[in-house]
Amino acid sequence: MHPAWLIQKKRDGKELTADEIRDFIRGITRGDVADYQATAFLMATYLRGMTANETVALTEAMLHSGEVYDLSNIPGIKVDKHSTGGVGDKVSIILAPLAAACGVTVPMMAGRGLGHSGGTIDKLEAIPGFQTELSRERFDQQLLSTGCAIIGQSGRIAPADKKLYALRDVTATIECIPLIVASILSKKIAAGVQGLVMDVKCGNGAFMKTPKQAMVLAQTIVKVGRKMGLKARALVTNMNQPLGYSAGNSIEIHESIQILKNETLDDLGSGDLKELTVLLCAHMLELAGRVKTLAEGRKLAHKKLADGSAWAKFQEMVKAQGGSLDSILSPALGLPLAPKSIVYTAKKRGYVTEMDTQALGRLLVDLGGGRRQVTDSVDFGASLIFHNKLGARVAAGDPLVTVHGATEKVGSIPLAARLDDAITVSGTRKPVPKLVFGQY
Amino acid sequence: MHPAWLIQKKRDGKELTADEIRDFIRGITRGDVADYQATAFLMATYLRGMTANETVALTEAMLHSGEVYDLSNIPGIKVDKHSTGGVGDKVSIILAPLAAACGVTVPMMAGRGLGHSGGTIDKLEAIPGFQTELSRERFDQQLLSTGCAIIGQSGRIAPADKKLYALRDVTATIECIPLIVASILSKKIAAGVQGLVMDVKCGNGAFMKTPKQAMVLAQTIVKVGRKMGLKARALVTNMNQPLGYSAGNSIEIHESIQILKNETLDDLGSGDLKELTVLLCAHMLELAGRVKTLAEGRKLAHKKLADGSAWAKFQEMVKAQGGSLDSILSPALGLPLAPKSIVYTAKKRGYVTEMDTQALGRLLVDLGGGRRQVTDSVDFGASLIFHNKLGARVAAGDPLVTVHGATEKVGSIPLAARLDDAITVSGTRKPVPKLVFGQY
Repeated sequence: MHPAWLIQKKRDGKELTADEIRDFIRGITRGDVADYQATAFLMATYLRGMTANETVALTEAMLHSGEVYDLSNIPGIKVDKHSTGGVGDKVSIILAPLAAACGVTVPMMAGRGLGHSGGTIDKLEAIPGFQTELSRERFDQQLLSTGCAIIGQSGRIAPADKKLYALRDVTATIECIPLIVASILSKKIAAGVQGLVMDVKCGNGAFMKTPKQAMVLAQTIVKVGRKMGLKARALVTNMNQPLGYSAGNSIEIHESIQILKNETLDDLGSGDLKELTVLLCAHMLELAGRVKTLAEGRKLAHKKLADGSAWAKFQEMVKAQGGSLDSILSPALGLPLAPKSIVYTAKKRGYVTEMDTQALGRLLVDLGGGRRQVTDSVDFGASLIFHNKLGARVAAGDPLVTVHGATEKVGSIPLAARLDDAITVSGTRKPVPKLVFGQY
Repeated sequence: MHPAWLIQKKRDGKELTADEIRDFIRGITRGDVADYQATAFLMATYLRGMTANETVALTEAMLHSGEVYDLSNIPGIKVDKHSTGGVGDKVSIILAPLAAACGVTVPMMAGRGLGHSGGTIDKLEAIPGFQTELSRERFDQQLLSTGCAIIGQSGRIAPADKKLYALRDVTATIECIPLIVASILSKKIAAGVQGLVMDVKCGNGAFMKTPKQAMVLAQTIVKVGRKMGLKARALVTNMNQPLGYSAGNSIEIHESIQILKNETLDDLGSGDLKELTVLLCAHMLELAGRVKTLAEGRKLAHKKLADGSAWAKFQEMVKAQGGSLDSILSPALGLPLAPKSIVYTAKKRGYVTEMDTQALGRLLVDLGGGRRQVTDSVDFGASLIFHNKLGARVAAGDPLVTVHGATEKVGSIPLAARLDDAITVSGTRKPVPKLVFGQY
């Protein structure tokens, strides 16, 4: 079929057959379909949508565009967790060793920072020596010995997705549910997992701004995933404020270690982080058949945090991936924050009623904590520490955010003005959004 | 503005500003906007549409992407006619000299065959020696001396349109009214005309299949053209059967000469061709202020056909553009048809109730009378002669079509089967579509 005919069919809102989609994706992978035809198709898909069957076919076609991992030599059900991205979202760093400590195998493929949102791979690379590119052999070996591994996306997995993603990024076709679903699921299934728990972020720091959009995405992932034989769950969770008390690469490893060591951090603002991690862990355990109910799963997760086995598993994983144990055992020394810091304080008494989470994520990027271009290097020490989150009652002069950055960065960015815009302290209390909007 | 933001704005159905459209088209012309961004924009425009103001801005931006002809040294109002394309549409060849004979200056820029539809430039090149590429100087000079010239599209006119058109062709974004309007008007205005009569073809041989689509296109062209200071008219005319009695390059020059010489051809099937040409001429004369009413215009056109001045003007034009006078004075010798011919006849008694005009156009292309690829050469002698058109009463064995082609072509194409599919003879009479569906 000529590419233009297939574009026309999608343009006219007709359902494409699995064969048509497979041929088109094959053409994209081989270069027979030009980029300018791919983007016309992407825009037609953005505006016309796709049926569940089309989305399954697209996922399958992208999944088979590259290498497909076979992890059947590793016993048990392999389960991964994936988040659509936010600010301060360090769940994966805690969750992979926690779920492994609970007896589930976690072959986790994670990403780098994208736009205003951070990336697990960048954060882990803040640990000196930590390798995020493992050979297939080492990856398998580590899963067998340790039960978890967190690695970067292999270029050999779903190359069609890589190509389409780069095109979507520059043609305003990112926020399209069937394209998002196919992108995520093709990579996860190609990576050899049988179970997936999705954390669909929702709010002013997420790509999905409204609970409705997020819910549709969550439901579609579960539906399409199940049609493809994947055990799938999806949660819609709050991203109207950063998750936990920190955002930044080294600082998020700090915070993760504190959770893994079961330190009491609720007063520091990590309550939401711990609660969400435990809940996602419970879903993973249930999917894997490790527990019968979510309540049982949460209990087991809490136990493995309390008895030190999650923290031990994290150390095992860091060691297996070449990371410096010293740096995680003494993070204050081993994971230094950037030298220059300022404390931003409340101007008046009141309640923290709004945090523009995307703006906070962008501020971190501008401080060097993320990339503006793929080739930028990252300052692991750039950090934002949130002392008072949504709903907190503050007095004038109370600290709201501590900013760490390189001296010249801190000097050149109008921090106070940008934080004034990003954080609202109001005389009137406002309800704090729930942590979990829905579970599917 | 980043191209992706502009694409997003159009994607979301918001109205773009003139500045935004100008910057985007400038980016396309310069290559700053990638082809894959241009096509995402084209698809978003296809599905979201454009307001009249956006279409004006797009037309202006494309018009200024290249050379703009200034014909102010040539006295009078310069008027062109443009058709959206069909089968057997040889109107331009007759109309340019006819309108010039009536006292209007006609600087006509015409195209080559596209898809199943023929092109005026290909047809004129069937006349040995006829030059369709003239320098600006020769073009101006000929307009001053002869009052008409028909040339091919200059590559220096509206290069942005050239680029976008090529992209639209391979991304299923051709049939989009604002894009069609901007494409036509930008070229026409850049070519220096002040008046334009559009012939919007409608039916099974046209790009616009329904009168409603065609009417919207006609009205939009007139509206946008007038907003840009162009005197504009648009007619919606029938393309549910070929126009005139012939399709093919040399044969259409024959038929045009017969009309120009005012031979009586109604019984041959050229009645529609003559009637439409005279009507379009009347509109051009009225636009140019040469006559006060259409009736007066038609009368003048008929007079110039009857008194031989249109035919003389055609000879003048052919001579000025280097064409062989001998060949048009003795077309049977000078414009030979292809050597092998077959006559396709009616299988039963009845009425011709349907002609699949697009299929007939495609058959002519396959006979070598048009191009499948831009680089194909054209067999000027390949021809279809229609002996009985819609509404005609035929007996079994009566000729319907005479096909001329190269011996090997005629031998290799299943002509009878394809003509069986293309032409319906039915026992029940069906109403014949009107020649003109509307005038705007």
